[in-house]
Amino acid sequence: MSGNSFGTIFRLTTFGESHGPGLGGVVDGCPAGVPMSEEIIQQELDRRRPGSGKASTARKESDRVRLLSGVFDGMTTGTSIGFYVENEDQRSRDYSTLKDIFRPGHADFSFHAKFGRRDYRGGGRSSGRETLSRVAGGAIAQELLRQQGIALYASTVELGGISVATMNYEDAAQTPYFSADRDVVAAWDERIDAVKADGDTLGGVVEVRAVGVPPGLGEPVFDKLDARLAYALMGVGAVKAVEIGSGCVAARSTGSANNDYMTLDGFTSNNAGGSLGGISSGQDVVARAYIKPIPSIAREQKCMHRNGETVCVRVGGRHDISAIPRINPVLKAMMALTLADLLLVDRRLGERL
Amino acid sequence: MSGNSFGTIFRLTTFGESHGPGLGGVVDGCPAGVPMSEEIIQQELDRRRPGSGKASTARKESDRVRLLSGVFDGMTTGTSIGFYVENEDQRSRDYSTLKDIFRPGHADFSFHAKFGRRDYRGGGRSSGRETLSRVAGGAIAQELLRQQGIALYASTVELGGISVATMNYEDAAQTPYFSADRDVVAAWDERIDAVKADGDTLGGVVEVRAVGVPPGLGEPVFDKLDARLAYALMGVGAVKAVEIGSGCVAARSTGSANNDYMTLDGFTSNNAGGSLGGISSGQDVVARAYIKPIPSIAREQKCMHRNGETVCVRVGGRHDISAIPRINPVLKAMMALTLADLLLVDRRLGERL
Amino acid sequence: MSGNSFGTIFRLTTFGESHGPGLGGVVDGCPAGVPMSEEIIQQELDRRRPGSGKASTARKESDRVRLLSGVFDGMTTGTSIGFYVENEDQRSRDYSTLKDIFRPGHADFSFHAKFGRRDYRGGGRSSGRETLSRVAGGAIAQELLRQQGIALYASTVELGGISVATMNYEDAAQTPYFSADRDVVAAWDERIDAVKADGDTLGGVVEVRAVGVPPGLGEPVFDKLDARLAYALMGVGAVKAVEIGSGCVAARSTGSANNDYMTLDGFTSNNAGGSLGGISSGQDVVARAYIKPIPSIAREQKCMHRNGETVCVRVGGRHDISAIPRINPVLKAMMALTLADLLLVDRRLGERL
Amino acid sequence: MSGNSFGTIFRLTTFGESHGPGLGGVVDGCPAGVPMSEEIIQQELDRRRPGSGKASTARKESDRVRLLSGVFDGMTTGTSIGFYVENEDQRSRDYSTLKDIFRPGHADFSFHAKFGRRDYRGGGRSSGRETLSRVAGGAIAQELLRQQGIALYASTVELGGISVATMNYEDAAQTPYFSADRDVVAAWDERIDAVKADGDTLGGVVEVRAVGVPPGLGEPVFDKLDARLAYALMGVGAVKAVEIGSGCVAARSTGSANNDYMTLDGFTSNNAGGSLGGISSGQDVVARAYIKPIPSIAREQKCMHRNGETVCVRVGGRHDISAIPRINPVLKAMMALTLADLLLVDRRLGERL
Repeated sequence: MSGNSFGTIFRLTTFGESHGPGLGGVVDGCPAGVPMSEEIIQQELDRRRPGSGKASTARKESDRVRLLSGVFDGMTTGTSIGFYVENEDQRSRDYSTLKDIFRPGHADFSFHAKFGRRDYRGGGRSSGRETLSRVAGGAIAQELLRQQGIALYASTVELGGISVATMNYEDAAQTPYFSADRDVVAAWDERIDAVKADGDTLGGVVEVRAVGVPPGLGEPVFDKLDARLAYALMGVGAVKAVEIGSGCVAARSTGSANNDYMTLDGFTSNNAGGSLGGISSGQDVVARAYIKPIPSIAREQKCMHRNGETVCVRVGGRHDISAIPRINPVLKAMMALTLADLLLVDRRLGERL
Repeated sequence: MSGNSFGTIFRLTTFGESHGPGLGGVVDGCPAGVPMSEEIIQQELDRRRPGSGKASTARKESDRVRLLSGVFDGMTTGTSIGFYVENEDQRSRDYSTLKDIFRPGHADFSFHAKFGRRDYRGGGRSSGRETLSRVAGGAIAQELLRQQGIALYASTVELGGISVATMNYEDAAQTPYFSADRDVVAAWDERIDAVKADGDTLGGVVEVRAVGVPPGLGEPVFDKLDARLAYALMGVGAVKAVEIGSGCVAARSTGSANNDYMTLDGFTSNNAGGSLGGISSGQDVVARAYIKPIPSIAREQKCMHRNGETVCVRVGGRHDISAIPRINPVLKAMMALTLADLLLVDRRLGERL
Repeated sequence: MSGNSFGTIFRLTTFGESHGPGLGGVVDGCPAGVPMSEEIIQQELDRRRPGSGKASTARKESDRVRLLSGVFDGMTTGTSIGFYVENEDQRSRDYSTLKDIFRPGHADFSFHAKFGRRDYRGGGRSSGRETLSRVAGGAIAQELLRQQGIALYASTVELGGISVATMNYEDAAQTPYFSADRDVVAAWDERIDAVKADGDTLGGVVEVRAVGVPPGLGEPVFDKLDARLAYALMGVGAVKAVEIGSGCVAARSTGSANNDYMTLDGFTSNNAGGSLGGISSGQDVVARAYIKPIPSIAREQKCMHRNGETVCVRVGGRHDISAIPRINPVLKAMMALTLADLLLVDRRLGERL
Repeated sequence: MSGNSFGTIFRLTTFGESHGPGLGGVVDGCPAGVPMSEEIIQQELDRRRPGSGKASTARKESDRVRLLSGVFDGMTTGTSIGFYVENEDQRSRDYSTLKDIFRPGHADFSFHAKFGRRDYRGGGRSSGRETLSRVAGGAIAQELLRQQGIALYASTVELGGISVATMNYEDAAQTPYFSADRDVVAAWDERIDAVKADGDTLGGVVEVRAVGVPPGLGEPVFDKLDARLAYALMGVGAVKAVEIGSGCVAARSTGSANNDYMTLDGFTSNNAGGSLGGISSGQDVVARAYIKPIPSIAREQKCMHRNGETVCVRVGGRHDISAIPRINPVLKAMMALTLADLLLVDRRLGERL
């Protein structure tokens, strides 16, 4: 398998399974002189823990990160940064019932088809715990971006089909479900309760936004800012659609309505989501990820046994009702990793001699 | 600038501006023994030419491709394949009025911000003509896939807000607008006529589909099949959203409704769009690209002059009303390039020793 | 900084400083189904420890490796393999005298020029301890190669200017200095004693050899087998020259003498070192690395202070007289990583459809 | 096949066979604002043509390069630069006798083993003509380096076992055989005449040198300056050994003699060849390539027929007696491509925030 590295210049490589010794990664290509500590990373990891909103269960995961290299006297040194999070909660639960079962909506069947073997305990490499390494790496990228005056936000804009009415992305980090609209929370609570009672799960939509991005990031042709963001976000487990700026709506608009006009005071709209011809324009970079419902539901479901038979299985354990809001810091991390990479790529090329 | 290469193993590198000598590319990593000729590539290039439906103007572009290397006795040899298309239609039109103008919705401003200079004649590297090289490279990828029993389709499913009612993707290549529904064509004609009379432009939605994809393509974590497709399609000029399978709709569904169940006769639905955990499941791989309206409209528009002033400019020339259907073979090419690459990546890794 | 990853398909990414918490790495792209355990890796790490021959000091470094992911039921799963070695011997020695000193032959000055800061304790990232991660990653590559019938050897062929007379590479692992000639050991001992008494250090030459390599590995043009081996070996700290096959001698030969002729019984010589046109021929792959003397000598040496002054410093600590034989398993690891990568690259491309 | 791209950031991708339509390439990642024209490239290509010294035959190859993209108003624009050289001299000679013959010292056998088919006409992709694209790409890299005050030289220091006595690398471009010593030319002429009369060929040693390289280029660990140069030079057809600085000699030296000491006036020697810990020190970067004799000799030689029989063949055509001096501009091009890439890599990472 390949594909465990992300980025060309600022590059994150990750490893780890949900029920192995632990998870971690290496950030290669971070410039020297970025303030860095275990606390900076831990702060982002803590955002990923359950507890905010009714969609997540109350597991106790401390997930303490350890910095293993690349930082000296509180600053990055320019060498590769290793980090590691030990798995604590490896109860000796019996997973043998899942050994030969392909659950619907999960990677069981396709991993088996690809590799011929798999670590079937709790999802193995395809477990949601894999995103821990993304968030840790993303925290390093975010610190680099912060030094350049770039701030990132991830806010929930839709849950179970109910949309927000306002777009307070700056407050979202302090709002249940990381919602962009405090007033929608009660409706979401109600929807979650109903679906939970029904033993089912929900999806939604998360907006990620970068403020302060300089013009010039992204490359013409294949490596457009839009393309790199789509790649970054669609690579997160539950994401099934990505849009930039007005996105899907643009496809139903006209040229005269969709074009963003420039004046001396700047652009008069941002349908483009901050990207012109695939290169950042200086406007906010805005993308939305569409999250599918969690496939593990609290009902018996038809599964495929490895021998071809259909079996009915109810997968036990405590499960979230929605990947939102735990997915939000993951999506923010992916945007941070993307922008850090494009920023460094541009630094060498965009400058004129 | 970087970003002119696509793919890890089966890799296309392209070059060329709309008003320079010509456009071309290099395919590196195509295995030996794939049947190849200028005719195979030309056939796909011809699909990209205007003429099908009322949305494209009747420019005369012959766009003859020349194979420069990597093919011997009608077969690829395993060495890099160079190809080239000479630009014919380089009229000595005066582009100096566009030299200092940043048009809305175009890459003028962002290219200027990034590079400090640009070939302002007809869009230069950001011109739609750049996609010629994608289609040529994609034709080589498609021939490789065809040898493996994989067939690709690109069909229009929405234009100007009007959707198809049926999904005949196999007939689309013979239908105006490459429509998946012959019966919607009249309504689209009418919509195009109205918008054209208004000096405006339209967007729409194109579905790309691969039939016969074996299970196992795509890599866990960052290089998921979904992620690679999103990257491939979102890197095409006018695309502003990409969805896999049920996509945006999945975000409003429940787990029990969105899960695809397997039986001995196969999957009973394909909401996943052929990807489980980012790895192909053997079902059809289905993605949809949302296309924004063409920014060049036949009306005077407010533009930004390089000196900061707002100027009103009506950009002359013959322009299409929609990027559809000329974008369809481009999107198909991008899917072909993605699958060819993932197929070769998997061949070496997915196999057990 | 970048450059902490090695390989395209079978890729090792490393991290760690000599006086930080520890060193480790990630192997991405190892196929599923390779037998793997901490013991397999530990065995190679143990070869790197001092003790064989008089050239190395008797430090006590246990260097226990821990496998963190990618292995299940004694087999690789196809997911990324994380490993880690905790640094034990971090005595609270005072390194502040070295803080502003640029030692000759070391990376002090160039790291400072590049990054503006450095972990000056014991060499930091440029310490020889960095090679631990190479040996661990190389052990995984070697196991993959072993499954394919490929065996690797690293034997010392010259030390302090004294060459071996025979070439028993198969016995070298059991011979002092990993020598290819047991009879030269006494002369080397004598030479080492004399140089040690003089407070000086020595270099030498190591041959690495792969037996059982199938024809077809390596790629035409830039990624020739020769080029990839040269890159791999010259990237190890003390190596200042690399030759393939008859190497330097070939430059003084004639075409008729240097050509290797083929008969039904195979090649009649191996001046090419197993590579024709950059692609393996099925003969033994043979390369030699020329190792410079260790720059840390037990004498006072002129160093540059950061303020520009010349200062005389005698760097304390226990130092080896030669990088040989501790460098031997490192060079073998680099050859293993190179061949594993080229083998997987070829698997997908070399095969005809 | 892969491996037709060189470089991470400043990347050259090449294509072309000796007897196909032509050869060319794409330079991706060259910053905007570098002066560029067909003349700048042609000047380097002309250096590659035979005529200087008695070692090359007097073929008439005009090899006119055409720039296809990426340059506007005499400057690079930051977009990919395509170039092409049409093959002129494709005489309808009958190559069918070579179709099933594996010549000694050539890539015939290994290409056949790898790909199962090959363009057997005049070497195909493994022909020396492949280096045309390297020289053209290298000319672009050299112009970039020139703008940064870096000058490159390639001079012959040994031919047929006869070494130069002086090291006038600055005059070499005007001296027969690109020799670093005008006084050795007569002896080389004599040696060439003797070997030619004998129907045999010769090898030699070429030194490449970069003056004006700033400190900081190259990356710790795998991507050391030394490693990247070794990869670059060893990837050229006839090269079988590469050394950096004192190279092979260092392996027979002692630490006290091999260390380069720094004073306020700079280093007092350059045994390191301009690289400390794999990072440039500001001294001249010096590498030497050992060139094997040309395998095509003017005598009948034993070859292997595809059916396994030994056949005696005298390969016709006009052949050079040595790859020197035609290889010299190729080696200089490879050094230029390497340094341009490392310079751009460092620009983004080496700078402190």
